[in-house]
Amino acid sequence: MVKPLPTPLEFWFEFASTYSYPAAMRIEQMCRDAGVPLIWKPFLLGPVFKRFGMTDSPFNLNQVKGDYMWRDMARICADQGLAFRKPTAFPRGSLLGARVVCTHPDAPWLGAFIRALYVANFADDAEIGAPDVVAACLDRAGTDPALALAAAHQDAAKTTLRTNTETAIDKGLFGAPTCVIGEELFWGNDRLDAALAFATGAGQVAQARP
Amino acid sequence: MVKPLPTPLEFWFEFASTYSYPAAMRIEQMCRDAGVPLIWKPFLLGPVFKRFGMTDSPFNLNQVKGDYMWRDMARICADQGLAFRKPTAFPRGSLLGARVVCTHPDAPWLGAFIRALYVANFADDAEIGAPDVVAACLDRAGTDPALALAAAHQDAAKTTLRTNTETAIDKGLFGAPTCVIGEELFWGNDRLDAALAFATGAGQVAQARP
Repeated sequence: MVKPLPTPLEFWFEFASTYSYPAAMRIEQMCRDAGVPLIWKPFLLGPVFKRFGMTDSPFNLNQVKGDYMWRDMARICADQGLAFRKPTAFPRGSLLGARVVCTHPDAPWLGAFIRALYVANFADDAEIGAPDVVAACLDRAGTDPALALAAAHQDAAKTTLRTNTETAIDKGLFGAPTCVIGEELFWGNDRLDAALAFATGAGQVAQARP
Repeated sequence: MVKPLPTPLEFWFEFASTYSYPAAMRIEQMCRDAGVPLIWKPFLLGPVFKRFGMTDSPFNLNQVKGDYMWRDMARICADQGLAFRKPTAFPRGSLLGARVVCTHPDAPWLGAFIRALYVANFADDAEIGAPDVVAACLDRAGTDPALALAAAHQDAAKTTLRTNTETAIDKGLFGAPTCVIGEELFWGNDRLDAALAFATGAGQVAQARP
């Protein structure tokens, strides 16, 4: 008997998103351990928030909630053993990094690049919208920065990212990170275990009664 | 040597709040297991949301987020082995239940009453704002409904609830449930373990660098 392949886990993320950082740092290893294929899905939160009438991050629009989030992030990163420094600018420009991901969906260095860019934003307080910062992260991930950046500047990269963002809205995403498995959404760094349990069939998923 | 008493855990909750349900159902047992004193702190979310310019639950104001929340609630309750039915009215009137709690902070039946009223709201789809529903929950918790309701109608109950809500705002609460231990806030059903770890000194709490 051939065991059926598990449904892939789509990891929808935003380089500017705070809670995407601790999630992105461990999702690849978690998927590997569970035998679940991982698909990195970059998108932009700006257009999603705009759809809900917000012109900035909810953490900037509501400072009380924002203050809590930074404290919570510090605690979560400490728990996960991740370096963390509150960035001096938030949210940072995630366009270039997201376009790099869009043009290299199957690159062996993709996970390492994503993690490096998150570390740049949330541990090193670097301006991740700047090409030299993205280039340094590509270099750290073991690939040629010039080649990857050239691809990211092509129209195909822009189209893919725009399509991803529209798809995110169509699927009912409202924040990042969100794990999508089939029709099922799991929002937040707090739902990675539940998402993987669902992907492997280990978790019960209840149907809400109408 | 006398072991120092652990700092009490204040459990700030709202009977209308969805995620307060799975948290309220287990917080007393969790505190007992950890040897942490529990203080039930009822408050009203309405004035808190109003402070942030919202005239309704954020789950009603943003239907996409609301749809996700109901799905997430169904999954969480299934995981915790809790009955769950999406209420036909949301949010429900929590005033009377909260006033009952305010006037009986040390009653031995308090936890049982709180759990019964949450079950009424989120499993039985009952109108928890109605005196007969609150009375039935008091009865189920093993106390005299008429006596408890009479106390809840006194001015002292109203004053305590109003003060609690103002204190919640002053402490930086923006949602429910929130565990407060000293100056530290832990928001959400997802943070009960972290709150208890902090209360018992088992958890590291990092300071966010400025």
